[in-house]
Amino acid sequence: MRAAPAPVVQVRGRALASAEDRLAVEAPLEIRLRADGEERSLSITMRTPGEDRELAVGFLFTEGLVRDRAEVGEITEGEDTVTIELVGRPLPARDRSFAITSACGVCGKDSLASLRAIPAGPPGPGPALDPEVIHRLPLTLRSAQATFDTTGGLHAAGLFDARGERLLVREDVGRHNAVDKLIGARFLAGALPALDQILVVSGRASFELVQKALMARIPVLAAVGAPSSLAVTLAEEGGMTLLGFVRDQRFNVYCGHGRLDG
Amino acid sequence: MRAAPAPVVQVRGRALASAEDRLAVEAPLEIRLRADGEERSLSITMRTPGEDRELAVGFLFTEGLVRDRAEVGEITEGEDTVTIELVGRPLPARDRSFAITSACGVCGKDSLASLRAIPAGPPGPGPALDPEVIHRLPLTLRSAQATFDTTGGLHAAGLFDARGERLLVREDVGRHNAVDKLIGARFLAGALPALDQILVVSGRASFELVQKALMARIPVLAAVGAPSSLAVTLAEEGGMTLLGFVRDQRFNVYCGHGRLDG
Repeated sequence: MRAAPAPVVQVRGRALASAEDRLAVEAPLEIRLRADGEERSLSITMRTPGEDRELAVGFLFTEGLVRDRAEVGEITEGEDTVTIELVGRPLPARDRSFAITSACGVCGKDSLASLRAIPAGPPGPGPALDPEVIHRLPLTLRSAQATFDTTGGLHAAGLFDARGERLLVREDVGRHNAVDKLIGARFLAGALPALDQILVVSGRASFELVQKALMARIPVLAAVGAPSSLAVTLAEEGGMTLLGFVRDQRFNVYCGHGRLDG
Repeated sequence: MRAAPAPVVQVRGRALASAEDRLAVEAPLEIRLRADGEERSLSITMRTPGEDRELAVGFLFTEGLVRDRAEVGEITEGEDTVTIELVGRPLPARDRSFAITSACGVCGKDSLASLRAIPAGPPGPGPALDPEVIHRLPLTLRSAQATFDTTGGLHAAGLFDARGERLLVREDVGRHNAVDKLIGARFLAGALPALDQILVVSGRASFELVQKALMARIPVLAAVGAPSSLAVTLAEEGGMTLLGFVRDQRFNVYCGHGRLDG
């Protein structure tokens, strides 16, 4: 359930009226790991219920805890729990398991050095980018979002091909969760790395979103909002193209200009 | 440094031009604790440099690791490190220290039961709310923000009195950090609990922001964006007034209507 009704008092000027609003649902999800007969809680994240398997698997993948589809065995879902069986991998050390507990991918790391993702490789040349295709991306993302989000409270992330065709869209109250759901879905489908695709996010581009994109070897990140300084630094280091303020027939290219216009 | 210049390629339609943009600075801050001659890393969070002491202390306070000003001793600042001496409190158990490492205040908790904040008490009756005062809050917040934020990438949090006077504003790339900086500043000034004040945030209202406000016993949270379902649930349980979509002479009251109009 993505949205829930809520009675509200609507105030306009000084006038009060009873009304009904729809709220983006936020609820805790516990991600648990099982290996060699042992089971352990890995983390708890606030998310919008819906694609919990995808979120949990995407989180494991973008945190570097699994690399291949074959390492993920049985996935068991409770109401607010997902338990993932690791195949051919031991449970992470307990310190490590706490050290990566954050769905933010950053806070919780126990040293500054541990912040950087270690992607499987550079994203590669990636697609040639046509500005006209880029201009259309946010509207295409929003047209998918509009059918789901009646709350004004959900972030969206979408995966597109180089011609601007929408491949998959996911939504969540958490920006990182929307991206983890997207990457988790592609991981489960055996469709990673996403070497020729474009990740579009409805908000800002942080360090952590760039990190997640690099783990999936996505060569282009297009954000409707602003990027942060560290997002640009990491994207540049990782050989990625980072676009910001993609809206109203305009955008800024922060790095990776080489892919522009073929 | 809140903003940094960055060379960009600006694309309008199909036209490319070189330009300079300003990026919101995002950099990791390590929070360390010291007690009884022992020192330990507590967490790393991505933040906008600036009020690191306030952020670190606010984080400790909203996580329940310190309650009184007297429990905070010497504060030592490095470039991306703040070390806080605990007075009359031992270091938290190592598991605990990892369990609360998230600046999100949620992910990283090791059980669903540990999610709820344990505030020092209910926020109390709080101020009577005049709709005209509420309508002005976002503009007053933005007028303070405009002088700082030239990047489009910073979240703002402000503390106001019941007449709508702006007491303090903080900005950060992270929503939670902006609130922690604000609450940390009041904590250091011995100005908590904030029983008659209004917390205004430039974005959405999540569970975690409500939790932080409740720790400081702030009775009213006004968000320019949408609240989540769990934010409303927690605000209601905590006896708080939660306002959402506060903009354009309108807002919704999600709970705590009693404070409205005296």
